[in-house]
Amino acid sequence: MTQLIRELYPICRSITGEGVRQTLRLLAREIPLHVREIPSGTRVLDWDVPREWNIRDAWIKTVRGDRVVDFRAHTLHVMSYSVPVRGRVSLQQLRRHLHSLPDHPDWIPYRTSYYEEDWAFCVTHRQYEAMTEPEYDVCIDSDLHDGSMTYAECFLPGRSDTEVLVSAHVCHPSLANDNLSGIAVAAQLARYVAMKHRRYSYRFIFAPGTIGAIAWLAQHESWVGRIGHGIVLAGVGDPGPITYKASRRGNTEIDRAMAHVLRHRGGEHKIEAFSPYGHDERQYCSPGFDLAVGCLMRSPWGSYPEYHTSADSPDFVTRESLEDSLETCIAAIEVLEGNAAYVNQRPKGEPQLGRYGLYGRTGGSADVNMAMLWVLNLSDGRHTLLDIAERAQLSFSTVRRAADALQDADLLAEAPGLTTRDVARHGDAEGVR
Amino acid sequence: MTQLIRELYPICRSITGEGVRQTLRLLAREIPLHVREIPSGTRVLDWDVPREWNIRDAWIKTVRGDRVVDFRAHTLHVMSYSVPVRGRVSLQQLRRHLHSLPDHPDWIPYRTSYYEEDWAFCVTHRQYEAMTEPEYDVCIDSDLHDGSMTYAECFLPGRSDTEVLVSAHVCHPSLANDNLSGIAVAAQLARYVAMKHRRYSYRFIFAPGTIGAIAWLAQHESWVGRIGHGIVLAGVGDPGPITYKASRRGNTEIDRAMAHVLRHRGGEHKIEAFSPYGHDERQYCSPGFDLAVGCLMRSPWGSYPEYHTSADSPDFVTRESLEDSLETCIAAIEVLEGNAAYVNQRPKGEPQLGRYGLYGRTGGSADVNMAMLWVLNLSDGRHTLLDIAERAQLSFSTVRRAADALQDADLLAEAPGLTTRDVARHGDAEGVR
Amino acid sequence: MTQLIRELYPICRSITGEGVRQTLRLLAREIPLHVREIPSGTRVLDWDVPREWNIRDAWIKTVRGDRVVDFRAHTLHVMSYSVPVRGRVSLQQLRRHLHSLPDHPDWIPYRTSYYEEDWAFCVTHRQYEAMTEPEYDVCIDSDLHDGSMTYAECFLPGRSDTEVLVSAHVCHPSLANDNLSGIAVAAQLARYVAMKHRRYSYRFIFAPGTIGAIAWLAQHESWVGRIGHGIVLAGVGDPGPITYKASRRGNTEIDRAMAHVLRHRGGEHKIEAFSPYGHDERQYCSPGFDLAVGCLMRSPWGSYPEYHTSADSPDFVTRESLEDSLETCIAAIEVLEGNAAYVNQRPKGEPQLGRYGLYGRTGGSADVNMAMLWVLNLSDGRHTLLDIAERAQLSFSTVRRAADALQDADLLAEAPGLTTRDVARHGDAEGVR
Repeated sequence: MTQLIRELYPICRSITGEGVRQTLRLLAREIPLHVREIPSGTRVLDWDVPREWNIRDAWIKTVRGDRVVDFRAHTLHVMSYSVPVRGRVSLQQLRRHLHSLPDHPDWIPYRTSYYEEDWAFCVTHRQYEAMTEPEYDVCIDSDLHDGSMTYAECFLPGRSDTEVLVSAHVCHPSLANDNLSGIAVAAQLARYVAMKHRRYSYRFIFAPGTIGAIAWLAQHESWVGRIGHGIVLAGVGDPGPITYKASRRGNTEIDRAMAHVLRHRGGEHKIEAFSPYGHDERQYCSPGFDLAVGCLMRSPWGSYPEYHTSADSPDFVTRESLEDSLETCIAAIEVLEGNAAYVNQRPKGEPQLGRYGLYGRTGGSADVNMAMLWVLNLSDGRHTLLDIAERAQLSFSTVRRAADALQDADLLAEAPGLTTRDVARHGDAEGVR
Repeated sequence: MTQLIRELYPICRSITGEGVRQTLRLLAREIPLHVREIPSGTRVLDWDVPREWNIRDAWIKTVRGDRVVDFRAHTLHVMSYSVPVRGRVSLQQLRRHLHSLPDHPDWIPYRTSYYEEDWAFCVTHRQYEAMTEPEYDVCIDSDLHDGSMTYAECFLPGRSDTEVLVSAHVCHPSLANDNLSGIAVAAQLARYVAMKHRRYSYRFIFAPGTIGAIAWLAQHESWVGRIGHGIVLAGVGDPGPITYKASRRGNTEIDRAMAHVLRHRGGEHKIEAFSPYGHDERQYCSPGFDLAVGCLMRSPWGSYPEYHTSADSPDFVTRESLEDSLETCIAAIEVLEGNAAYVNQRPKGEPQLGRYGLYGRTGGSADVNMAMLWVLNLSDGRHTLLDIAERAQLSFSTVRRAADALQDADLLAEAPGLTTRDVARHGDAEGVR
Repeated sequence: MTQLIRELYPICRSITGEGVRQTLRLLAREIPLHVREIPSGTRVLDWDVPREWNIRDAWIKTVRGDRVVDFRAHTLHVMSYSVPVRGRVSLQQLRRHLHSLPDHPDWIPYRTSYYEEDWAFCVTHRQYEAMTEPEYDVCIDSDLHDGSMTYAECFLPGRSDTEVLVSAHVCHPSLANDNLSGIAVAAQLARYVAMKHRRYSYRFIFAPGTIGAIAWLAQHESWVGRIGHGIVLAGVGDPGPITYKASRRGNTEIDRAMAHVLRHRGGEHKIEAFSPYGHDERQYCSPGFDLAVGCLMRSPWGSYPEYHTSADSPDFVTRESLEDSLETCIAAIEVLEGNAAYVNQRPKGEPQLGRYGLYGRTGGSADVNMAMLWVLNLSDGRHTLLDIAERAQLSFSTVRRAADALQDADLLAEAPGLTTRDVARHGDAEGVR
């Protein structure tokens, strides 16, 4: 994952343009990707797809021709969606188009102006202070034209056509945690899921923030009922502890699975209630969709000084955090995949477990034996294994193992209804759509 | 309000009689009042309206003719509803008819005997101890006759005939906090409400405690379904922090509005669960009516030493407390008036707020911008603005302001059903009834 | 109760055999008992009734003939259900059939092998260490044959055929707290209940643990719907504080009654959630029955070192603990017996209590007066007296007393429905069945 992040880091991404396409091409080497283009001007829900923005070069030069600010040195130097500009400006004029961070004089801030025509340079405060000459030559060699917005999907069909959505935003330029970390963890998770027998189908979305999620929702408006569970991955590589922000409904299966996994993995973590500000869960959880989509982060956006600055570099992201984020996702998916409700086939009294070779059997831990009693006691078709694990204060995997043993001994049968739903296959679910 | 309290203070009120009438006459100079008389003996629910009690004078004199206790000095000197008495009694006999407070030797206690025929004097303990002569002449020049019980209403019609009830008891003689404070705040609140555009109709009731509320309920038995919300005001001028006692149902809109207002006003306050003892909420919340009526107090009855003694004088009541109580009521009424459920008209994804001039617009505080996102996200017809304010941990007024902006931009429409109910006008709601 | 415990202590009980029969014969002198025998091999739910086990004598002797371990000295010396054995064994062989407790060198452990054919001696660790000779003669003069399993019931019919189940396991040999204490408290409770006017019918079950409860459930499978409430009594004599383990449903009337009683009795106590491990509540609360049966213990099983050792002798059990356990059961039964929902007959406003002689009447404590207001306020047919007591934070008995006074004054009538259910009498409920 760190390798992929370093590879993607130098690319100048924005909500549209070649940067996103190049990013998705590199990603397509890792996982099967279906890339889509949506023409500028397309109405998507309440929004219009904006013009496509591309940039070739940009600089601030002294009148003697020395580049004092150079886009080739860092993509953050130009405010995203800056209109083209070329000419000589006074220092006073220029300063109205400069952003810097006095408190962090070596960091470049990240700024955008998607929906208002403007141009600006983002510079370190040392650069800002060093610009003392009366005039400078400036050039932003960008263009805005009717092109298209790009996003990609990786679809992995399962036995059921109920889908698990994993979404990462791809619109930020050279920022590592926000959100190359999310892209890398999503890609690695897709590789993991691709190798597993799957109950659910999985859909990984790599799209520009806000407008990309809105475009995807617009194009799948009649379809989103299939999304049973989802996670937005955003800022999952910084050294802070994990934060899971619950879905709008707040007690959906993904919310409960994540809370369970985080509690049983131990270690510091935080679970936040939904709020309508943050990442693309804002769109997935808008009231007209209200999907069961939460957001996995480490340090929440805005809560760390490196956020949206050049200090969010590949060095800021740790291998341990990326792996911990990935393992948390995998564990949550194991819960979703393995969660089901069962009916005890000997519900009156306890079954004589010795009869089935299940009493204190070798290799069975005390936890699994206790879990068998819990599963038998609560398997009345109304409690899922996750319900049981929570009530028994046992890990889901222990409870799942106990249920497997009981099912093998015909003491447990899947509760009717769930199976049917999962077996129903969507006609064309056989590949990446 | 302090002016009104000082003016009403000297009057000898009881549950019936001229004192109440005089009080209501003075009050009628402040607000439009409709005064009602209910004849003695009228059956009201499980009670009978008692005989009317009036008193002209009362004293204890030495046999030499010196008044040692004088009703003209303080109305509390005579136990309320004392039967007439005149004659010479031994000190021993007299003492059986004396009440004093040894722990507060300068205070006169307040005593009543509404439903048992008796007479007594209430005296300071210093007076009690000074009475050492073998015999005294006593006189209570009162009478009990079939007359009537008096109460008054101020009705202010609104767009809806759902009513907000505000009730204050008027039966106590010279006691300032209990309940001239409630009367004064209710009157001031009526003046405030009278000047506002009103969604709800408002009914202010000034009636004797217990029997007055019961009589009002008896006379409006088929009507009380119109009472949507209500507050009993009792002891709202002492220097203690505010106490709100919730209605029997405990989670009605007035309960939630009061709790919200108190939390967001800051400062010390207490919210108590309903209990069937206290003020007239006992009657309004009896199970056959079960109205959404709470009780606003400062120090609860019985919790402060001045309670029901001559120390509950106009000096005990502070201007700050009265104003704080009034402002709390006004804020709660603003919540009731402004609370409604809406439906987001662009429920799929977030609307592009910039399109409507609502994105980070000048003058909009960060709170209002955040409130707009909350209102959009939760306006699915199932959440009122108060629900939203509570979940967002924002003040109701901020959320109301956000909803107004969104409604102006046609992004929000009132949820069907609520409007209809409020617009329905009661035929004769056009004046004080 | 301590007398009965000392009398029953020496008997060698197991899940079948003469020890249980002798125990029940002694118990039948205290309370009316109906003893039942279920033949070995009878299928009961998922189990088979095992062969009957009896033992006459057992010993380990030196080859010189000295008894170094003697069953006549303590019934725990032989593992329960040991198959018969007789012969000379090497010390090495013998040690594979010895159990001792190195940490408690003077205590004999308690061991069983019901469902696996084996034999063993349980010895103090001092005995174990003293056995140093190369060979010993061993004898277990037991037999396992097709006989029957024995249990007993004491049935006390009430006005309603809804039953309260009290269950104690009788399968342990010389262990006092586990469970002669439960047997003794159950017997004493039966004597108490027998002398009372009863709303409910009561069924006391004295049966071997697990297999006994399962056999009873198997034989009453179509009947268990009559069990309205139940308590398993197990380990109720040790000096620890009371532990109540709630039923599987967790908020049944018996759970709430026990919690109420323990809170209002004061003193240390613990309320545990249900878990599917423990005593016979495991069977009563299996999902196919899911009865409202909790478990009263003092120190939970396994939580004290004396558990399942010879240190659980009659000296370990205290009179105070037995009486406290009994009184707790009686108080909980008083709640069940007295709990009902009523309808206030003057639900509009408060009734004028003075009219009925109920206002501040002599002998009525402040609590009872307050309880009357609570009962009147909440008696809308939807709140039971236990609900009211909990909400009012008053003891059930105070609330019951208030309801009685109000019912005597015709201010309260029993809520329809409850009466009918209770009055319905089961045809043959007139004696021990």
